[in-house]
Amino acid sequence: MQPIKLALGSLLLAVSTAAAQANADVLRDNANSIFKPIPEQASDQLDPNQIELGRQLFFEPRLSASHVISCNTCHNIGTGGADNVPASSGHAWQKGARNSPTVFNAVFNVAQFWDGRAKDLEEQAKGPVQNPVEMHNTPKNVEATLSSMPEYVAAFGKAFPSDKQPVSFDNMARALQAFESTLITPDSRFDLYLKGDDSALDAKEKKGLQTFMSSGCISCHNGVNLGGQAYFPFGLVKKPDGKILPSGDKGRFEVTKTQNDQYVFRAAPLRNIALTAPYFHSGQVWDLEEAVAIMGTAQLGKQLNAEEVGDIVAFLKTVTGKQPKVEYPLLPPSTATTPKPVD
Amino acid sequence: MQPIKLALGSLLLAVSTAAAQANADVLRDNANSIFKPIPEQASDQLDPNQIELGRQLFFEPRLSASHVISCNTCHNIGTGGADNVPASSGHAWQKGARNSPTVFNAVFNVAQFWDGRAKDLEEQAKGPVQNPVEMHNTPKNVEATLSSMPEYVAAFGKAFPSDKQPVSFDNMARALQAFESTLITPDSRFDLYLKGDDSALDAKEKKGLQTFMSSGCISCHNGVNLGGQAYFPFGLVKKPDGKILPSGDKGRFEVTKTQNDQYVFRAAPLRNIALTAPYFHSGQVWDLEEAVAIMGTAQLGKQLNAEEVGDIVAFLKTVTGKQPKVEYPLLPPSTATTPKPVD
Repeated sequence: MQPIKLALGSLLLAVSTAAAQANADVLRDNANSIFKPIPEQASDQLDPNQIELGRQLFFEPRLSASHVISCNTCHNIGTGGADNVPASSGHAWQKGARNSPTVFNAVFNVAQFWDGRAKDLEEQAKGPVQNPVEMHNTPKNVEATLSSMPEYVAAFGKAFPSDKQPVSFDNMARALQAFESTLITPDSRFDLYLKGDDSALDAKEKKGLQTFMSSGCISCHNGVNLGGQAYFPFGLVKKPDGKILPSGDKGRFEVTKTQNDQYVFRAAPLRNIALTAPYFHSGQVWDLEEAVAIMGTAQLGKQLNAEEVGDIVAFLKTVTGKQPKVEYPLLPPSTATTPKPVD
Repeated sequence: MQPIKLALGSLLLAVSTAAAQANADVLRDNANSIFKPIPEQASDQLDPNQIELGRQLFFEPRLSASHVISCNTCHNIGTGGADNVPASSGHAWQKGARNSPTVFNAVFNVAQFWDGRAKDLEEQAKGPVQNPVEMHNTPKNVEATLSSMPEYVAAFGKAFPSDKQPVSFDNMARALQAFESTLITPDSRFDLYLKGDDSALDAKEKKGLQTFMSSGCISCHNGVNLGGQAYFPFGLVKKPDGKILPSGDKGRFEVTKTQNDQYVFRAAPLRNIALTAPYFHSGQVWDLEEAVAIMGTAQLGKQLNAEEVGDIVAFLKTVTGKQPKVEYPLLPPSTATTPKPVD
């Protein structure tokens, strides 16, 4: 009987391996029907001259009235594309109303800002520059600033060769959009898994992915950015406490003035979430476990247990991608006609 | 007679060319006896692991209590190694007492700060981190911050392998010194000239160099950094007005408490001076012509005429060197034990 027993054992092993493989494939197939990997580039239509100009402008403190605050101040490319404080410090140390969202992969969001009030990165870029509590500047002063430096005049001319007046506030925003579109983070372990590398996630992470899908998180957090694609009320089932969801900030309602949009926000994209604490638009939760648990009660009406939370967090840590490498740009010197900084 | 005339003409031409060459060599020889080119590296003793760690720390906003201000905020490597405002905005938008000096080539200065109160870059680095109007932090909190991130613990261990406690405030400063020692700007046109390239400066620039030397500027502005080597009273001959030399800031007197050191400052190093307006410790003069003219009356007792000022400025614009290329570092994410930012 020995040979038959052995043969049967081998057969059973083969069957169970095949079944495990099938299960693995099911999990991945399900995941692939909900998520998408970050592509190698956001678009093949980006103009290298606009990208290069945008890189300078992204680090350009003279876009702010004080000459101290640049895009990178609040969207720091060394720390996940955000500043990782509850609310940014802007002009004269005034605080922003909401937590600064990451610029990484923002190109894949349906719209920009927590309330989606800018349709794209170009429109977004104009906001903070003019916001009195952020960069406190004006389009006119920005144009005067950029026009005062021959190197910028040349760079705008090269980036927007068919424009009669290449140096403009609009083109500043276009160049920033071009550069920011390169700030993407492909090749996270989760993306490698989606593409077929089964060993990219360990058992706990796969369990977390399974829980993330089966618990309903994916109703809002799906697509390439695991979020960022649609708007949902924060506190759909149960409102979190007033520190996390301050009553004064009605979210998208402030954009649409529609009652249904009270406390509605764009679902946070979860790419690189392990790098960008504190969480939520209020930036009041530092711990990812805590944030996941709050989402459970607030959005799903579920008290996720410690194991479920731990598994989901293990999964979320696999969506940290390859961070962009950027050479710090050289910025042209101010000239006699450059507007002076303002306190 | 024709051939003889021609021969004589050629001879005269040859003699005058030789004389011009001799004059050119005299100017360069004189210049070489006073100045030195920036070397290709400040030292061959720098540890690559310390440099790499220092690069991270230089851009690390969590060295400040607010988690927003890094070394690069005030010593911006994209804008000549300084922030180019009269006085930096620090914690809670408080203003620094003096104009932020450039970090570029600072390794070649005899001591650091306008009053030389830090003997080297290591000692300097500890100042702004602890200054309540700058980064507003404490050594203890910095050490707690850096120790809370395993990536930093590993990087300090690699950079200081023989230390029992590699993560320390002192080693932070040492790593910053290592990185900052790489922020040098060789190969300015002036340096190429010093090394023998006659065509690196045009006639006006050479005249400016000659005027810079013959007017007495070189009494203070000499050596590799055209300054930075010794201390002199600002207003040696005639005190500039109180906006430029505010009576409340007594300079090196505040360090030495010696009467002779009232209003004494370290001679400003002039490398890359065209990139780092506004000028003087008070940062109140934006125009390089004006700064040169003020130096004439204040230090030399000379009313330099417009041509002399123009020539000197033309020369000073040739001391802008090759700016350092730095890849923006990736910084490790905070952990649960990282001290939180303070407003």
